[in-house]
Order: sequence, then C-alpha cells, then structure tokens
Amino acid sequence: MKPRSPLDALFNPRSIAVIGASRHPGKIGYTIVRNLIESGYTGKIYPVNPFAKEILGLKAYPSVLDIPDEVDMAVIAVPVGIVNRVARECGEKGVKVLVVITAGFSEVGNREAEEELVKIARRYGMRVLGPNIFGVAYTPIGMNATFGPSRIRKGNIAFITQSGALGIALMGWTAMNELGLSAVVSMGNMADIDVVEVSEWLADDPHTRVIAIYLEGLKPGTGQRFIEAMKRVTAKKPVIVIKAGRTRRGAAAVASHTGSLAGADTLYSAGFKQAGILRAETVEEMFDWARAFATQPLPPGENTVIITNGGGVGVLATDAAELHGVPLLQPDNELIEKFRKTMPWFGSPKNPVDLSGQAGVDNYVAALRVAYESDKVDNIVVLYCQTAVLDPIDLAKAITDVAKEYRDKNKPLLVAMVGGIETYEAMKVLNREHIPAYPSPERAVGSLAAMLRYKRYREKLGKQGLV
Amino acid sequence: MKPRSPLDALFNPRSIAVIGASRHPGKIGYTIVRNLIESGYTGKIYPVNPFAKEILGLKAYPSVLDIPDEVDMAVIAVPVGIVNRVARECGEKGVKVLVVITAGFSEVGNREAEEELVKIARRYGMRVLGPNIFGVAYTPIGMNATFGPSRIRKGNIAFITQSGALGIALMGWTAMNELGLSAVVSMGNMADIDVVEVSEWLADDPHTRVIAIYLEGLKPGTGQRFIEAMKRVTAKKPVIVIKAGRTRRGAAAVASHTGSLAGADTLYSAGFKQAGILRAETVEEMFDWARAFATQPLPPGENTVIITNGGGVGVLATDAAELHGVPLLQPDNELIEKFRKTMPWFGSPKNPVDLSGQAGVDNYVAALRVAYESDKVDNIVVLYCQTAVLDPIDLAKAITDVAKEYRDKNKPLLVAMVGGIETYEAMKVLNREHIPAYPSPERAVGSLAAMLRYKRYREKLGKQGLV
Repeated sequence: MKPRSPLDALFNPRSIAVIGASRHPGKIGYTIVRNLIESGYTGKIYPVNPFAKEILGLKAYPSVLDIPDEVDMAVIAVPVGIVNRVARECGEKGVKVLVVITAGFSEVGNREAEEELVKIARRYGMRVLGPNIFGVAYTPIGMNATFGPSRIRKGNIAFITQSGALGIALMGWTAMNELGLSAVVSMGNMADIDVVEVSEWLADDPHTRVIAIYLEGLKPGTGQRFIEAMKRVTAKKPVIVIKAGRTRRGAAAVASHTGSLAGADTLYSAGFKQAGILRAETVEEMFDWARAFATQPLPPGENTVIITNGGGVGVLATDAAELHGVPLLQPDNELIEKFRKTMPWFGSPKNPVDLSGQAGVDNYVAALRVAYESDKVDNIVVLYCQTAVLDPIDLAKAITDVAKEYRDKNKPLLVAMVGGIETYEAMKVLNREHIPAYPSPERAVGSLAAMLRYKRYREKLGKQGLV
Repeated sequence: MKPRSPLDALFNPRSIAVIGASRHPGKIGYTIVRNLIESGYTGKIYPVNPFAKEILGLKAYPSVLDIPDEVDMAVIAVPVGIVNRVARECGEKGVKVLVVITAGFSEVGNREAEEELVKIARRYGMRVLGPNIFGVAYTPIGMNATFGPSRIRKGNIAFITQSGALGIALMGWTAMNELGLSAVVSMGNMADIDVVEVSEWLADDPHTRVIAIYLEGLKPGTGQRFIEAMKRVTAKKPVIVIKAGRTRRGAAAVASHTGSLAGADTLYSAGFKQAGILRAETVEEMFDWARAFATQPLPPGENTVIITNGGGVGVLATDAAELHGVPLLQPDNELIEKFRKTMPWFGSPKNPVDLSGQAGVDNYVAALRVAYESDKVDNIVVLYCQTAVLDPIDLAKAITDVAKEYRDKNKPLLVAMVGGIETYEAMKVLNREHIPAYPSPERAVGSLAAMLRYKRYREKLGKQGLV
C-alpha cells in the first residue's frame, strides 16, 4: 500500500513482546497484555517475565531472547534501572521498535539514562517511542498496546498526545462520545520518534482521515522542521492542534510538567498558520472538528443551508455562521418555492429554513432532499429542538437514510440537537452512522467553519500547484 | 416574605384554570393539565372544556365562570379566534393573570387581536404572560404550567426564554444535565409582562439564586428602562444573558422569528455592561455559569488554587485561568510544604497542585483540606483525569464530604473531570450534591471567571454605596 517506513513496525507489528508483563490485575504490565488480547490484536503476543510461566493464558518467556520467533515491537514496562539492559537484549533479538512505557527519565532530570537508551537503539537500528508514555494503539489491526481503557471505538481520527494522563482520560472520553479512532499515540519524552514523524506516517495511512494533536511544546530548534514537515502533512490531511501552555503561567506549568519549551504563543500561532494546521481553543473543540472531518466529505463550496424546526436555534446558528465565516446561501426564488413546499404555511422557507415546531420527519426529509438536489447548496446543517410531535430517534434514522441515499452528492452534513435524554440517544445513533451530531448549534456550525478553513487552505495550495 | 407584587399570581397562584384543557394525549391542553398534576402542584387545578365532564381525573367546567372558587391564574390554550372572548370571561371571574399559550397574534401580523387582549386585561386589572408561549413553571410550589417536559429538576436557576422551541428543548436538556431550576418563563410576544418585570420578581425570590435569560431583542424604546431596572436586579443577584441575533444576518433571522428588533450588538453589549449583566457566548456557557452561581458562594477573594492529578489538564486550566482573568495563587513556602505532604514525591506542590497520576482519594482529600484551611486560598478548582488507580465515583463522594465539612469557609469549589462513562456518572453525583462539575478544565475555570467578574462588579457597587 504505502512505501516502507521506519514506523511501520510501530503501527503494523506482526508480533509484540510485552517486557514486564504481569499476572497481577492493576499492574501496568498486566493491563497492556489484557488490552492487546481484548482489542483483538491479529499478530502474536509474547509476554516476557522471568518469574511467570503463563500470563492471561499466553506462554511467558524469561527474556526477549528466549522468544522462538521474530519480534517487531517490544513494549517495555520494567523498572527504570533495567530498561537499558532490556533494550540491549531487544537489540540483540532484532526488535524494530521499542515502546518504552517506563517513566523516570529526562522528565525527572535523568538525562543520562535517556541518552543511553537512544544510543543503544541507534546501535541496533531500533526506533524508540517514549519513554514515559502510556503506549500506542492502532485500531485497523486491533492493537491496543496501552495501559489505558481496553475499549477504543474504531474510526478515522488519529490522536497524538504529549500528555499521558490527559491522553488516557480522553481515550475513555472518545469512546463515550462515539468518536472513532484509528490511532492513539502517547509521545512522552520524545527521545527519538516525535510528533512530526508520527504525523508523517499517519498522513499516508488510509485508515486515518484527520490528525488531532494535544501539543505542549516542541524541542528547541525543531520549529522550522515542524513547519516544513507539517506543511506536507496538511497538504494530504487536516491536522488539528490544541496547544497547551499558551499563556505565561501556562507555559511555566508546561515546563514543570514535561520540561518542554512552551515558547511564545504568537510564534506557535504563526507557525501553525504557515503549516496549514487548524488550531482549536479547547480539547472539546478539537474533537468536534475531528468528528466532522473524519466522517464528512470536504465542502465542495461555501454555500451553506440551515434546516431547523426552531427559530431560536436557527438564530443561534446564524450568529455562529457569521462569526465563524460560514456563508449562508441566499436562496433564489426557485429554491425558496421548493423549500416552501416542505413545510406548513407558518414555516419560513428562507435560510435558515424553518420547518416550524410542528415539523415531523416528513418535513425534514423533504427539505433535506431539496438541499441535496439543489446545485446551489454545498453544505447542510440540520438543527432540531426537541418537540412532542417529533421523536428525535425517528428523525436520526430518517436523516441517516437520506444521507446514505445522497452520499454521491458529496455534501457535508452536520446535525445539532437540543433537548433531553432522547436527543442524547438520537445523537449517538447519528454519530454511530457517521453523521456528526452536536449538542448545540454553535458547535455544529463551528465544526463546519473549520472544514471550510481547511478547504480554503487546500485551494490556495492548489493554485500554487502544491496539491 | 416579600412585598405583594402584581406577578405573585404568576408564580404563586392558589388556583389555576386550564382553559382549553383536553382529554386527548398529545394535545397541548392535555399536556398542561398532566404536567400540573405530575409536578405536584399544591394549589387547585380546574380544567375548562365545554365538552368534557372530567379530564385526567379532575372535574371539568364548561366555562371559567362556572368554577365555584376563586381563580388566580388562567392558562389559555384555545384557538386564537376565541382567546379574547375567554379573556373577557376571565376578567368577569376576577382572574389575576392570564398565561396565553395560543399563537397567531402579532408574531404573524395579527396585531389587532393582541392589542384587544391587552385592553381587556387592563380593563379588568389582569396581567398577561404571552401570547405565543409554552407556559410558566415555578418549582418551589411544584407548578409546571407548560406543555414542555413534565420533569423539571428543582433548583435555584431561573430561566427566562424568548424562544419557545429552544426553551422547551432546554427544559429537557437541563434535567438531563442535573441543572436545577426554580422557574421557567416563556416570554413569547411580551404583550404585557416583559423580561424586566419577570427579572424584578425573581430578584426578590428566595428560591432563585441566578437568572439566566435567552434574549432575542427588546421592544423599541425600552432599552434605557431595561438597563435601569436590570441594574437593580444585578445588585441583588447575578443575571446571565445569551443574546441571539448578534450578527447582521442573525438579527435578520430574529426579525423573521419573533419580530423583535435585535438591534446593534455593540449597543446591547454596552447596555449589558452598564447593567452588570454577564453576557455568555453560548447557551452551554450560560448554564455552565448558572450552575456555579446556583450552588456556590460568591468568591471571597481572587486567589485560586487548582488541584489536579494530571499535568496536562493542569496546564489547560492554567491557560484558561490566565485568559479569563482568574488569578492563581502563588503559594508561599509554608503552603507549598503543606501541599507537598499531600502527594507522592514526584508530585508538584506549586499551583497547579499536581498530585500525580498515582493520586488516590486520600491525596485529594488531604490537598482539599489544606486549601480549605489556608486563609490565603479563596477559590478551589479540582481537576481529575480518569486513571486506573482512582475510581471517579469514590472521588466524587469524597469531594462532597469534604465540601460539606468546610461549608462555613464559604469558598467556591468547582470540579472538572475528563474520562469515560464512569466520570460522567461521577459528575452527576457531584452536580446532584450541588458541587458544579464540568467535562473540561476550561469550562470549570470559565465559570469561576464569571463568578469573579460578578464579585468585582458588586464590589464596585459597594464602594458606591449601592449594595
């Protein structure tokens, strides 16, 4: 599929040794083996533990050197004092990539051990992810080599994180919020493999449609390389970054957290812009946008139509559209007449197309059909305020059906629903069916705005012959 | 308790006639009677319907004039053509306030009928809420006189809305999100009672701690009165407004929705500022802030401490604090040493106080105690990233216990939790126990920032001798 890359062993290992595997639930070395088994990893798993014969039903080996097979990846979760001895054994064994979970390296001032680890890796031609990480996951092959939650929802968002605790917490959060992931990569100290290299691999990964990065800071002197490399990545796929440590005080907190240089925020802003990276303000916003990119086609144009059953949410969406630069189509008379036929007489056929609080599934379906079939309409936002006359689950199913029918129109469709538990369930239905659904009109429109910004960026590249 | 007000009959009616009550589920006149019964309204309910003997187990009357008792409030849900005839009968009966659900008045150009309705009301000394509304609810007396959801969570947030559909949808949304309400008031066309008058009543209501308003626009010429009156309200209680129709296009959408003048947004901004009103950007933000005001004391000072188990969320919270103007305490050595004793050696006792990913309930409890007991700390933000070593439900219960123990310290406590379904459940526990919990550090810090802005506003008033 794609050219051989030094990171292939990180995302597509045929076999994984877990060094420091444990029989004791609660231990990191137990959780990693359990997660690999439960996630349905299709390669071979070799637990390594000198004091165990079997771990979670798998034969255990005293050392990586005793494994009677090639080992592509070694996940290392042993005490810091013996990591480098284990790394050397991995080198002897011909392991291709080390995923070093163990903490206690440069993040606590122990630079010597970290430099030694890199030296060993170089000597044997191995790559290193970490140290001080919670692991790596790649869902197309069912590989969850992390000590985070065992359940990851499959999908097309790759998530790269420089914070371990937040990354693990967000794994659970994404599963709860029906966000599908292709990969999760914990970066830790970035002794060897860094955010850029991981992004480059994911740019060519057919299972990844968007890359979302929690970034605290780059290593000194790597800014220009970051910009140049990310330019190539964003020419292929959207990249969304949440940059923590934006403020003076936040930067100080970053320094005490990972030791990264958070740097002047304006420099990061300028760099992200040059590189075509979309900068989100909050983690929630980053995943809101990622949800849209992962499931919808890029906007074919700017003209957006809002279909609603509530005037109030229509106004909020209209405000958000103007604030975020989402152009609302001014429908011509022909289109107005078509929309008028989809609603009761007291509805409003202009944009927002207000089907009125009396709207049922049929009204929504008819208006959606008009929007899909009109050449004037590029993007569609559907809003729903919970009413007694229309069950949100019925609406979710109907929207899903219409969207499938018109899939070849390649128009992004985003939904927002406001209401109680029934709308919450209906949004789950939509998200599972790959239609991005949000609990507020502003979040749906904000996500479409991010897609439009990326579309405009690509068009600019296109004019320069760069995509 | 409070002086007699013309709106007492709207919030504390001793008896309610539902004119246009229906036996048929799904009909508005059915839902209102059902909601009144199910919400446990403590007064008397008189369904009025000339074709029914009994509705939902209650004796029905052919006309309001046939009710053998005084009627304080009449909820009118009859066709628009007979509203004014019914209103006249209510006047004859001595009804004090009309809650006119029926639509089809000025919002569709039928100004004559609306003016006539007001004339009738004046003639008989009645007040009118509406027309074109979904009703009114006041939870201290279990009154849900709306055709929205039957279940409203009791609490201390009063919600006033100029949009019907959005208001109903948000009733369900607040219940799902553990937001407790004292009152819900649908304003509709504001033929008589307006946002100002309702706010003034709520300002003196002991069950309301914060007023949240979805506003589309004021009537022409009422701006100055709004500012002057709301100044008096905000001197008593925080008022949060989400103003829809902020943008040119949004204002046009408002005009077609309620016919209100959305007006120049800068004028609204200036007016809100003069009046001490807190302006939220989104509905979500409005209720985030309201949740904090409704449950926590006002900040006694500016010095804020963040307690966390994850460096990443700590950085995000620090950024948010600086961006929103929440001053983080620089702890002195004595306080640093106290915090240090609450954490493992690899934690960080500075602010954010990072208990590390290994933190258990005991670490959080100890750090919380230090924060409550230190005179230097005014406000506390607790962050939690889901980890395997600490069950969020256990943490939620422990936080609740400590907060109760230190209630007399009068320090606001806000919590943010990031993680999967278990953290979602833990946040429900906290919110039910009146500790505001948010799914992201930014939203917790943003809510504290709103409290601090209000505190500063009140201090300014205090210096002028106005509170």
